[in-house]
Amino acid sequence: MSERVNIAVIGAGRIGRLHAEHLARRIEGACLVAIADVNGPAAEQCAAALGVSKIFQDHRRVLDDPQVQAVVICSSTDTHASIIADAAEAGKQIFCEKPIALDLKQIDDALAAVKAAGVKLQIGFNRRFDANFHRIWELVREGKIGEPHLLRIASRDPAPPPIEYVRVSGGIFLDMMIHDFDMARYIVEDEVEELYAVGGVRIDPEIGRAGDVDTAVVTLKFAGGCFGTIDNSRQAVYGYDQRVEVFGSKGMVNAENNTPNRARLATEAAVREDLPLYFFMQRYTESYLSEMKAFVECIIEDKDTPVTGADARVPVVMGKAARLSYEQNRPVALTEVS
Amino acid sequence: MSERVNIAVIGAGRIGRLHAEHLARRIEGACLVAIADVNGPAAEQCAAALGVSKIFQDHRRVLDDPQVQAVVICSSTDTHASIIADAAEAGKQIFCEKPIALDLKQIDDALAAVKAAGVKLQIGFNRRFDANFHRIWELVREGKIGEPHLLRIASRDPAPPPIEYVRVSGGIFLDMMIHDFDMARYIVEDEVEELYAVGGVRIDPEIGRAGDVDTAVVTLKFAGGCFGTIDNSRQAVYGYDQRVEVFGSKGMVNAENNTPNRARLATEAAVREDLPLYFFMQRYTESYLSEMKAFVECIIEDKDTPVTGADARVPVVMGKAARLSYEQNRPVALTEVS
Amino acid sequence: MSERVNIAVIGAGRIGRLHAEHLARRIEGACLVAIADVNGPAAEQCAAALGVSKIFQDHRRVLDDPQVQAVVICSSTDTHASIIADAAEAGKQIFCEKPIALDLKQIDDALAAVKAAGVKLQIGFNRRFDANFHRIWELVREGKIGEPHLLRIASRDPAPPPIEYVRVSGGIFLDMMIHDFDMARYIVEDEVEELYAVGGVRIDPEIGRAGDVDTAVVTLKFAGGCFGTIDNSRQAVYGYDQRVEVFGSKGMVNAENNTPNRARLATEAAVREDLPLYFFMQRYTESYLSEMKAFVECIIEDKDTPVTGADARVPVVMGKAARLSYEQNRPVALTEVS
Amino acid sequence: MSERVNIAVIGAGRIGRLHAEHLARRIEGACLVAIADVNGPAAEQCAAALGVSKIFQDHRRVLDDPQVQAVVICSSTDTHASIIADAAEAGKQIFCEKPIALDLKQIDDALAAVKAAGVKLQIGFNRRFDANFHRIWELVREGKIGEPHLLRIASRDPAPPPIEYVRVSGGIFLDMMIHDFDMARYIVEDEVEELYAVGGVRIDPEIGRAGDVDTAVVTLKFAGGCFGTIDNSRQAVYGYDQRVEVFGSKGMVNAENNTPNRARLATEAAVREDLPLYFFMQRYTESYLSEMKAFVECIIEDKDTPVTGADARVPVVMGKAARLSYEQNRPVALTEVS
Repeated sequence: MSERVNIAVIGAGRIGRLHAEHLARRIEGACLVAIADVNGPAAEQCAAALGVSKIFQDHRRVLDDPQVQAVVICSSTDTHASIIADAAEAGKQIFCEKPIALDLKQIDDALAAVKAAGVKLQIGFNRRFDANFHRIWELVREGKIGEPHLLRIASRDPAPPPIEYVRVSGGIFLDMMIHDFDMARYIVEDEVEELYAVGGVRIDPEIGRAGDVDTAVVTLKFAGGCFGTIDNSRQAVYGYDQRVEVFGSKGMVNAENNTPNRARLATEAAVREDLPLYFFMQRYTESYLSEMKAFVECIIEDKDTPVTGADARVPVVMGKAARLSYEQNRPVALTEVS
Repeated sequence: MSERVNIAVIGAGRIGRLHAEHLARRIEGACLVAIADVNGPAAEQCAAALGVSKIFQDHRRVLDDPQVQAVVICSSTDTHASIIADAAEAGKQIFCEKPIALDLKQIDDALAAVKAAGVKLQIGFNRRFDANFHRIWELVREGKIGEPHLLRIASRDPAPPPIEYVRVSGGIFLDMMIHDFDMARYIVEDEVEELYAVGGVRIDPEIGRAGDVDTAVVTLKFAGGCFGTIDNSRQAVYGYDQRVEVFGSKGMVNAENNTPNRARLATEAAVREDLPLYFFMQRYTESYLSEMKAFVECIIEDKDTPVTGADARVPVVMGKAARLSYEQNRPVALTEVS
Repeated sequence: MSERVNIAVIGAGRIGRLHAEHLARRIEGACLVAIADVNGPAAEQCAAALGVSKIFQDHRRVLDDPQVQAVVICSSTDTHASIIADAAEAGKQIFCEKPIALDLKQIDDALAAVKAAGVKLQIGFNRRFDANFHRIWELVREGKIGEPHLLRIASRDPAPPPIEYVRVSGGIFLDMMIHDFDMARYIVEDEVEELYAVGGVRIDPEIGRAGDVDTAVVTLKFAGGCFGTIDNSRQAVYGYDQRVEVFGSKGMVNAENNTPNRARLATEAAVREDLPLYFFMQRYTESYLSEMKAFVECIIEDKDTPVTGADARVPVVMGKAARLSYEQNRPVALTEVS
Repeated sequence: MSERVNIAVIGAGRIGRLHAEHLARRIEGACLVAIADVNGPAAEQCAAALGVSKIFQDHRRVLDDPQVQAVVICSSTDTHASIIADAAEAGKQIFCEKPIALDLKQIDDALAAVKAAGVKLQIGFNRRFDANFHRIWELVREGKIGEPHLLRIASRDPAPPPIEYVRVSGGIFLDMMIHDFDMARYIVEDEVEELYAVGGVRIDPEIGRAGDVDTAVVTLKFAGGCFGTIDNSRQAVYGYDQRVEVFGSKGMVNAENNTPNRARLATEAAVREDLPLYFFMQRYTESYLSEMKAFVECIIEDKDTPVTGADARVPVVMGKAARLSYEQNRPVALTEVS
């Protein structure tokens, strides 16, 4: 494969622009050659800032371009599955933001297209590339904690999303906890067989009226016998709270939140530190860069991607199972949903 | 009430001796006047070490002694309920190690006797007096975290108890997690309405053969809408792991484990700290002293005790509900059990 | 030697009462048999609280008592040297609060008496028995940091002593930094050859008018090539600040202050922890108990004491050298003073 | 001034390439237009990687180019002063790596040229832009610790530089501690009047034979009464150790080292964390970017630079005073040297 990969970004929203900047400026092996967005001016603005000459509104134009070897799909979620299928058919290597879709049939169709075309697909579960979680994964994998027995994930946003988003996102289990479901599978390296969800509206009644909850806890049973808990809140007033802990037969590993600095101030009142980094754009900046580097490297070295199509599907199944469990107040096996 | 309270300790095992030493030497308002134990030599040895002259085998002899104003019951669990009833009838103030009994009827009878006699009863949930948990409770109570939304308790022993103990203890939900059920109620200051338990045998198959699990996670739903999780393991190889975290509308508070020292050693391999204090006798030393000081103070100042008979009953109900939930793999309302 | 050591406490002030309580109640091998204080009622009160029957005003009466095997000298500093000499002559084992004297001749006379009598002498440098510093010492001794290259001691009181005390104490280098001089020798296990002191009045001009400074920094040159710095302040508004760090060829070890609890509160303002323990009675409680246990053990097992007469003398020399260095603004060799 | 500043980098070594990359890719307001290096291929390689078309060997060609508005001087130290003078004369805005020179006359001449030309000059004391130290500075400036009384700086490299470098660098006080002298002035916002240095050879005898020390401690007396200590070691086996602490009338602030992640692993042996970031390229990556952003912003907004010519001169004076103090083993006033 060539030394530099020619890549197009489809979707020039916040995440699209971030990936585009990384590809244009910070990844040795990548060459950003095109930007596409249904909103023409958005594509133009992004392309101009990064010195990219090819600008498209229709993603299919990108796929027709023989110079483009790979696409990074950052368009709205409802378009992911069909663009993946199109891109696969066009023989492009694919990076796609999560989730592929909220509908399993759509996911399966997209994955089938990828398989048929024999192209690579990497899903944007960027948190796997966070230095803290990656190090936890590594220590677990090296056997430092022995067999995993207990997993604890706290995952709390600094503020709720707009209510319009909540209405279409699929709800907390699919728009927020989906990251934690992926994290759980990543860290324990095992599949969940059954889960039990509780939830409630504690932050904003409007969220309840939109049919969702804003506070939730899910218990996981892994096939290999590990138990896990994940808690989510739409609003941690102290900032983005993203912590993982794994306990096993030989030890335990966990990680505190990252902070903007390590200064500690002691006065006659208390010892105080600054709050954790505010939200995902601050906390996970480097992880977005790392996942994209990994994607480019997989293309160059023709390796399997580190976050696969299967990794895209299972967390959606878990999200649906969690919602069902919450609605019926009973443990739900994943086989009931998939 | 008098300036010093004359107290007898019933049961001169490990905890009995600890309480006796505190009463004899470290609590201003207390005067240890008698030791009783069905095992005569145990009582004698303890009394000799502390300069106590009255030694009994039969606890009823203690209750007959008009000098004795209060008793501290540290005998085996199966005797707690009846000794409480006897002591109440004899008009003694009562401190009793937890649990009163594993049978709710026995608990209720004992509590009825206490009520009828109008004496005080304090239950030995000593962890409430631990500096870390007491400070968390205080901060929650002062409203520093607002309304509690999420509670997380990790509670892991350094090593499993003898298998003989497991066979008669009532199992992990009643011999170990009972402390955490009390902690949950203490910190959140609300009652649990429903819970869901999962568990498994990961440490020692012998524990499974004894009909118990050694690893368990319970999800709690509080009446006021807070959710909680408790995880227990019979064996944390790094020592006694006792941590609580509460998250609410205005913030979050948690506490790390205590360590024997704060030294940090950096070498070319890593930065390392010593392990947490090994077990409850190290970690909770001061809490045993504090709870006893509180008991003595309640007698002297004629106040209500900080851990009441109701506090004794509810955790047993929760333990039974957790076991039922585990057996039937479904959420169980506490009303099903009590 | 007998199984229990009969000990008398001379001086029933704050520290004397603390030692008396430990000896009476918390040290297996000790038997507190007498209390002496020039202030009779003080001795009586202390003795009554601890059930001690022998009460004296004149310490010589204690020394005449054949039942008394050892004395713990907690009287005012100006009496230490002569009481040590008297006690040695009477054949008693001796524990003495630091310093023996501010005058080297007096120290030497006292030490000569001890040597002539062949009795044991332990000096009350209690900080050596603090869990943090003891652990640092242990790690250094085990070679974990290799050869010591750099030592840093921060030692800051929460509030200045009464100005009357400052006027007679010998000044900051002798009443406060003397502890840190001892700590430096203890941790590095080497002798200081030369030092350089700077100081100023930053807290209270009254301290300056009394001829002292309230803020000081001393640089140490050890014989073996290690360098050290000690900083002292009479007033750290956040509480007692007592930290030691040693850096060497193979690593570094340091220790944070102890806190009353490990709770961390995160709100929208900051993450905060409670302040360090307020002062020496809180921070060093256990170290006072440990040093006295060590003293009693040395008597019972006929071992050398862990803090010797030489350990009493050198820090006074260092304090005098530091004062001279400060006054003349030049490095001073210890040989200039001793 | 224009919206984007056209900048040339002079010197394409490690730091030059880093600045070039930042200017080319990560700083909105900058446009990297030329690279110069006496080593032609080095300039070419750097320019090619960043898509820069103008490549020079002689820095004077850069200065002749009217497109170039500002230069970033990263050539060898002995060329700094003359290039500054040339660039000033050519009317270019100037960023220069520290130190300008080891000779005060050369520094003064360069600064005079800058003053005469009325151009801006920023010195590359990048540590001021480190998030930890910047936050400490901010808290001190906001008065959170009141008046500064004590400053402590630990600054230790992971490994010694090549012995060839040591021979020409000016020694530890000028090649290494110079950063800490700047930090001291930055944090306390006051000037040092006198200092006292001790030093020795503990790491490598070869360093001693080159006429330098590898371990040093300097005590500072600030004009306003604050005292400071700086310790340096050429070799901290656990990685780059860069910590600052300031103690004042109202509190204390300090900062721990940064680590690659926050994972903590507890096993039966110990609780361990990963080592601090290895060296300045890891620890100070962001600070290099921030200082350059600040420089560009100062040009665009026509503001004074945050690290001025005076900031370049004083640390060299301090380094010379420290060397003199070390050689003569006495406190040295800065007026003796400047």
